[in-house]
Amino acid sequence: MTKKTVLGEERIPRQWYNIVADLPDPPAPPLHPGTMQPAGPDDLAPLFPMGLIMQEASGERFHEIPEEVIDIYRIWRPTPLVRATALEKALDTPAKIFFKNESVSPSGSHKSNTAVAQAYYNREEGNHRIATETGAGQWGSALAMACKMFGIDLTVYMVKVSYHQKPYRRSMMQLWGAEVHPSPSEHTKVGRDALAKDPDNNGSLGLAISEALEDVVTHPGSKYSLGSVLNHVLLHQTIIGEEAIEQCQLADAYPDVVIGCVGGGSSFAGIAFPFLREKIEGKTKTRFVGVEPTACPSLTKGRFVYDFGDVAQMTPLLKMYTLGHDFMPAGIHAGGLRYHAMAPLLSHVYSLGLMEAVAVPQVACFEAAQLFAATEGIVPAPESAHAIRVAIDEALKAKQEGVSKNILFNLTGHGLLDLGSYDAFLAGELTDYAYPAEKVAEAMSHVPVVG
Amino acid sequence: MTKKTVLGEERIPRQWYNIVADLPDPPAPPLHPGTMQPAGPDDLAPLFPMGLIMQEASGERFHEIPEEVIDIYRIWRPTPLVRATALEKALDTPAKIFFKNESVSPSGSHKSNTAVAQAYYNREEGNHRIATETGAGQWGSALAMACKMFGIDLTVYMVKVSYHQKPYRRSMMQLWGAEVHPSPSEHTKVGRDALAKDPDNNGSLGLAISEALEDVVTHPGSKYSLGSVLNHVLLHQTIIGEEAIEQCQLADAYPDVVIGCVGGGSSFAGIAFPFLREKIEGKTKTRFVGVEPTACPSLTKGRFVYDFGDVAQMTPLLKMYTLGHDFMPAGIHAGGLRYHAMAPLLSHVYSLGLMEAVAVPQVACFEAAQLFAATEGIVPAPESAHAIRVAIDEALKAKQEGVSKNILFNLTGHGLLDLGSYDAFLAGELTDYAYPAEKVAEAMSHVPVVG
Repeated sequence: MTKKTVLGEERIPRQWYNIVADLPDPPAPPLHPGTMQPAGPDDLAPLFPMGLIMQEASGERFHEIPEEVIDIYRIWRPTPLVRATALEKALDTPAKIFFKNESVSPSGSHKSNTAVAQAYYNREEGNHRIATETGAGQWGSALAMACKMFGIDLTVYMVKVSYHQKPYRRSMMQLWGAEVHPSPSEHTKVGRDALAKDPDNNGSLGLAISEALEDVVTHPGSKYSLGSVLNHVLLHQTIIGEEAIEQCQLADAYPDVVIGCVGGGSSFAGIAFPFLREKIEGKTKTRFVGVEPTACPSLTKGRFVYDFGDVAQMTPLLKMYTLGHDFMPAGIHAGGLRYHAMAPLLSHVYSLGLMEAVAVPQVACFEAAQLFAATEGIVPAPESAHAIRVAIDEALKAKQEGVSKNILFNLTGHGLLDLGSYDAFLAGELTDYAYPAEKVAEAMSHVPVVG
Repeated sequence: MTKKTVLGEERIPRQWYNIVADLPDPPAPPLHPGTMQPAGPDDLAPLFPMGLIMQEASGERFHEIPEEVIDIYRIWRPTPLVRATALEKALDTPAKIFFKNESVSPSGSHKSNTAVAQAYYNREEGNHRIATETGAGQWGSALAMACKMFGIDLTVYMVKVSYHQKPYRRSMMQLWGAEVHPSPSEHTKVGRDALAKDPDNNGSLGLAISEALEDVVTHPGSKYSLGSVLNHVLLHQTIIGEEAIEQCQLADAYPDVVIGCVGGGSSFAGIAFPFLREKIEGKTKTRFVGVEPTACPSLTKGRFVYDFGDVAQMTPLLKMYTLGHDFMPAGIHAGGLRYHAMAPLLSHVYSLGLMEAVAVPQVACFEAAQLFAATEGIVPAPESAHAIRVAIDEALKAKQEGVSKNILFNLTGHGLLDLGSYDAFLAGELTDYAYPAEKVAEAMSHVPVVG
């Protein structure tokens, strides 16, 4: 029995997949908050290079991956598809559990897939400086490496709670030459205002986005870069699912269910969309399950409305499942799953009934992660632990029902730079937190009424 | 051009290679310090399971790898052979640089290769508890995972300077269920004595070995485990070189020089011995270069004499290049390269003139590591950075001489849990330290005169 299905680098997919081409209707467009009209390429041009803007608005089914991007992907791609045999044995389940191991990238997560692409299109357009935000630091470190390789300066606003929880992420970004500020910071007006109101503000991704955006508009020649949420980011991540389809065929184990954590939604979209294409084509009946923390339940408790992507209301309005742009998450350890909203394209897919969503509490995720580390040897990122939790639950259900099935989950990253969080878990210091539904209703009063 | 040469798991070598069978004469035997007679299996039985003792004393050329060990190797083996194309480009060298990427193991280093084997033979013999020491924590975390998988309790004495420099290594061991003490500790007499003499004692590998040995002899039913130095450890690591030979053939790039860092010597022996076999057979003229820190120059400044493996003089006497068993290393960041002596078998190989050795200062290694991270995307362990430094120097020499050659080095581990050391480097806080030759002469006065 083969544990890992590995592909040679000649099997790196040559195209990213755009699910928009296969949906019954397109997602609602972003709106300019001033005019309430659809935001066009010109509205986005101050922030992004045109190569990415064209992908953002594209209805084309496939996009060629540039050769220079493929060349960097060769460092870690194709990533292995792994059969979690020891985990199956520990669970005594008839189910077969597979995971796509995106933790093998240089930055330790799937974020490198889009970071390299985004740095490439910026370099192509002659941009020499980028500002971005990062939650747990996976995105920031991925982009730092990519910018280093393409000769671009990078400034990162890192959510303050993660800046302190994950100090090695900061080191990693700095080793690759990035400038890193804890957010809220004194470097922007929006940061200073937040600190004036509450000097102990832990930060949020929405606030860090506002800081990065302000940085870009106040530094001519700079561009902005986002690690999730937007269509072009989801597009780049589909390389995960494209590889996985080939590997599942080789392993003779097409998934009955595909599971992934959802924060901004890009890693989930990345593994799910290519399989979803095959379902839309009527070839399969695979289920898709997005897993979010109970502390930040945008899909399971949020509203599908137009909202801002950031606290300071600087982004276009995006139609998405949201907890409200001024949502301030609890300091849970899955820093990558603390965004107030879900990618518009994934929100659209969810609203069409093409996927399920479930919210899980943090301690149960760390327990699943510990079992995974004990059996499969890999210390997972707290984000990925959400997918592991539900994969285990699915495998236990299969055992109860006495049925075999193929479970595939996305191991989005390793947890080697999150070991401080594991310390807290082992010390029994972690608590669960469920975001209350009434707070969502209240937050909606700050969301602009559109349409 | 292919960047990675990956092998399917059916290509995991089925045998470890024992170079003793191919040397002109055998290495000098370990001596019982009481009788000064060769130490036999019975002398070692209190410390090791018989399966490992038989390997330790073996003259057999090949040893079958047990199927259960192979099954766990499948998690990360075969490891990729990678062409460092971007590094070559940055150096503008005609040389081709390859590295064997052992950093992909669950513990992040080559140590897992022997950890799994050692845990296996202990489990086979029904041993339920192991005590060991660890320097930088790579060995301790590798053994913690292996013990977890084989249901063995583990206690680790971790050199104090590393315990504080690499806190995440401790977390990792604890996540896998190990008990971890900073060494010198209050848990042993030798530890208490050291602390009484100097409460600020930073620890050394030799001292931590003494603590682990005392722990074992005072806890009936416990066994001892060592992460380097001994013949059976070097044997297990030869899987690196066996894989690399096949991969170099596939890449059509047989190495002109094989480079690796040397601490206890096991990773270097692991990559070098299989290639050395082909040289001894007259097939090749490959050079072999072991790289050590100027702060701990056992091969380049030590004496080839019988000495103890630990501070408290509890081990058998081993003939090896040594700086003296009471050597106390400077607090350099390559924690795995701070042992006072070199593996007896590798010392023997060096004394036969089959390999070269060079000592390099720490800052130059971190500079090499930074260039490697910027080009190849991987943050290397400070230990591995020593090999990178010399690989770069060889590539620059090739450029100067205008000749092409194939350089192969061993990337023994990643540096993701050493990012605190990179912080110090980036802050300009690292200093170089060359161990003075006169101190070696003085230390020799404490070494027993044998033969």
